[in-house]
Amino acid sequence: MASVQKPTIPKGTRDFSPIEMLRRDYIFETIKKVFKLYDYKPIQTPSMENLSTLLGKYGEEGDKLLFKVLNSGDAFSNIEPSELENSKALSVKVCEKGLRYDLTVPFARYVVQHKNEILFPFKRYQIQPVWRADRPQKGRYREFYQCDVDVIGSKSLLNEIELLQIVDRVFEELGIPVVIKINNRKILAAIAQFIGYPDKLIDITVAIDKIEKIGYEEVCNNLKANGIDNEAIKKLHPLLNFKGDSNEKLDLVLNILSDNEIGKTGIEELSFIYNKAKEFGIKQDIEIDFSLARGLNYYTGAIFEVKAKNFSIGSICGGGRYDNLTGIFGMPDISGVGISFGADRIYDVLLATNKFDKSSIEGYNILISNMDESCLSYSMAVASKLRDNDLSCQIYPEQTKLRRQFEFADKNSIEYFIIIGEEERKGNKINIKKLSTGEQYEVPFDKIIGFFKEKF
Amino acid sequence: MASVQKPTIPKGTRDFSPIEMLRRDYIFETIKKVFKLYDYKPIQTPSMENLSTLLGKYGEEGDKLLFKVLNSGDAFSNIEPSELENSKALSVKVCEKGLRYDLTVPFARYVVQHKNEILFPFKRYQIQPVWRADRPQKGRYREFYQCDVDVIGSKSLLNEIELLQIVDRVFEELGIPVVIKINNRKILAAIAQFIGYPDKLIDITVAIDKIEKIGYEEVCNNLKANGIDNEAIKKLHPLLNFKGDSNEKLDLVLNILSDNEIGKTGIEELSFIYNKAKEFGIKQDIEIDFSLARGLNYYTGAIFEVKAKNFSIGSICGGGRYDNLTGIFGMPDISGVGISFGADRIYDVLLATNKFDKSSIEGYNILISNMDESCLSYSMAVASKLRDNDLSCQIYPEQTKLRRQFEFADKNSIEYFIIIGEEERKGNKINIKKLSTGEQYEVPFDKIIGFFKEKF
Repeated sequence: MASVQKPTIPKGTRDFSPIEMLRRDYIFETIKKVFKLYDYKPIQTPSMENLSTLLGKYGEEGDKLLFKVLNSGDAFSNIEPSELENSKALSVKVCEKGLRYDLTVPFARYVVQHKNEILFPFKRYQIQPVWRADRPQKGRYREFYQCDVDVIGSKSLLNEIELLQIVDRVFEELGIPVVIKINNRKILAAIAQFIGYPDKLIDITVAIDKIEKIGYEEVCNNLKANGIDNEAIKKLHPLLNFKGDSNEKLDLVLNILSDNEIGKTGIEELSFIYNKAKEFGIKQDIEIDFSLARGLNYYTGAIFEVKAKNFSIGSICGGGRYDNLTGIFGMPDISGVGISFGADRIYDVLLATNKFDKSSIEGYNILISNMDESCLSYSMAVASKLRDNDLSCQIYPEQTKLRRQFEFADKNSIEYFIIIGEEERKGNKINIKKLSTGEQYEVPFDKIIGFFKEKF
Repeated sequence: MASVQKPTIPKGTRDFSPIEMLRRDYIFETIKKVFKLYDYKPIQTPSMENLSTLLGKYGEEGDKLLFKVLNSGDAFSNIEPSELENSKALSVKVCEKGLRYDLTVPFARYVVQHKNEILFPFKRYQIQPVWRADRPQKGRYREFYQCDVDVIGSKSLLNEIELLQIVDRVFEELGIPVVIKINNRKILAAIAQFIGYPDKLIDITVAIDKIEKIGYEEVCNNLKANGIDNEAIKKLHPLLNFKGDSNEKLDLVLNILSDNEIGKTGIEELSFIYNKAKEFGIKQDIEIDFSLARGLNYYTGAIFEVKAKNFSIGSICGGGRYDNLTGIFGMPDISGVGISFGADRIYDVLLATNKFDKSSIEGYNILISNMDESCLSYSMAVASKLRDNDLSCQIYPEQTKLRRQFEFADKNSIEYFIIIGEEERKGNKINIKKLSTGEQYEVPFDKIIGFFKEKF
């Protein structure tokens, strides 16, 4: 414990200061409150999963971004020098565990592992950090929280509508105006069939997914690079570029895909979800958007994405229906649907649009002076009285000059400073200074609670 | 994504089911509420720290228990075959990061790294998981939560008393009767001087720390094994075995250590803390215990440990004062004091003593039937009305036989099942069945909120 180190934290990770924590807690509590209103139940899974649970679930790129945890004990005792040549194989051998990459795969693992204890339909929420060895950059971290809510074991489209209601309510409570974009993977599959490349669904959707980021021209280049010919791309053109409201879009795509069974099913689903969501009172804007694809290839039905209207930051929430996620763990044909809220981006939106309200998030703080030994018992009695009535407060721990205690109060944004000296102790009263205005109040001991309950 | 795997989780880790999560949340929320009442502020630190921050801080044994995270990218590209021979050095080379082992060292690192933003005294709490590669066994996990509360930058003993008040309030709110044991490291140092082995303080305290686990005889053997002679051990005997109340103990030790400055300071501190805690209204039992040592060698003043009275499980909370924790990161002479609540053991105590109350922890659930398309809008209107008034509920997502919905309600411990059919829809009313008693109520739509607000 001798050598002095200049402390830092790993790149891409963050410390959260008190004010940041209070704001983050406000976001998590708001989201949790809405999840609970819809009777979703919390679960948590371990931070470390067996690497075999995670590998191969997020594509080749995802595998590279998994953080691997070195086996404990002597991890290298049975390693031959020749194994150093195959870094990938060696890393899997010396690391049996990895850090959670998202909440979806661990949830699928949970459902299969606990299937005998779970009653389906199973509605769960999960708020936990995930880790990705992404290159750190502004707004992208190696540790960040996801807030996921899913129903599994029910094919009813009512679940999709309920999730849209949850999205609507969360962003209403947070005061963030949003556009909820919806689409259906079946329609995308039908489009792939329609242009003559049914087996290129993934390439086409990944390319389409990028239309907002890289533009139409570049998407066409990507499609070409994936072996899709010009004629097919031309067929795609009207589907990507038409304007009009959501119902006009539905009509157009129904015309184009009228002979395609899977396409018609997708259009029916999308139309039902869109119209019922409106009927059941979703207040935020909902928009059908056929260019919405989301990269994740386990989606099979509805797909959602939410964007803030007043602040450009990419999607702040997204999700969709998956018909076979648990299949990878040996439990096929369990359909589920879920969405995930991006707490970090929501934080950025709220901060940038000045939506963190001091009174509701930071609260009002009370500091009690600590003048001398003779007043201490009385100060403690005042503190206990406040706390017994659920009012937070602190006593300045050191007996120092009042000036220094005032400084501390000022710098800590203390709202009320209670000054207790000989006079107050003998008079069985307290002296309260409201620091933001300089107002001063003399309040008898037995009126303290009434005073503050009125203020807060 | 083809091969089917039987899913498991790494040994020593756990999934938390909804009921477990609700109970755990209840514990965390209770602890958090009390921390906030005393105006401690939340912070969080990253799950991964630089390994250099963690190594050497927990002793040789602790270093072995650190989970190391493999460097991303090609971790083994520059490793020579000869390096395989030194597993320890190699593991540090290929793993620059490690998982947080406790919250204390990251807190010290946080304080030093952010010293220019922090106003001292700094009162923080932190509730996060920690990871240890311990051999898993009953009640010992490789991932578990710590709930730490510390004041740093104040030498006032008022902080110790405040922490005892927090302990008192937390266990009062949780309904766990406890004994709070207190001691002072300075007294232990004086005892080490007194028996003639001032430099064996750590060995002596570690040995003493085990007295409850292994008994007096074995502790003596341990002391002998550490090179302490019989005469010294004999001198220790009265100090470890005397009975009497806390004030008698203070008198005895004051007699024995009357010539020892550091011992007298320790006795003064302990006496002040003990008597003020009583004066300021601590309700739970407080006991001075000179065999209380706690293994952590950064403690320099008060030490605390809390045990449940009605259930044998080791300590459920503990802490103490440290005068130089930030010194390891280059910021000497900052005194702090803190305690840590063991959420997992608290959970076990509450469960074993039947203290999880269904009504306060699990709440009452409402399920709304889903009979057919014609009733759906009305069911949704009922659900929205409940949720708009902060009452949680769910609609059964599938339109199936009512019998199946009843089964689901039963198995999910639903308290109230709202049945909405043609008759209810037309009559603008609902039919409520209380499942635990079979009672049935017919309630007009505009009386629904009143009905439930009265029930809950």
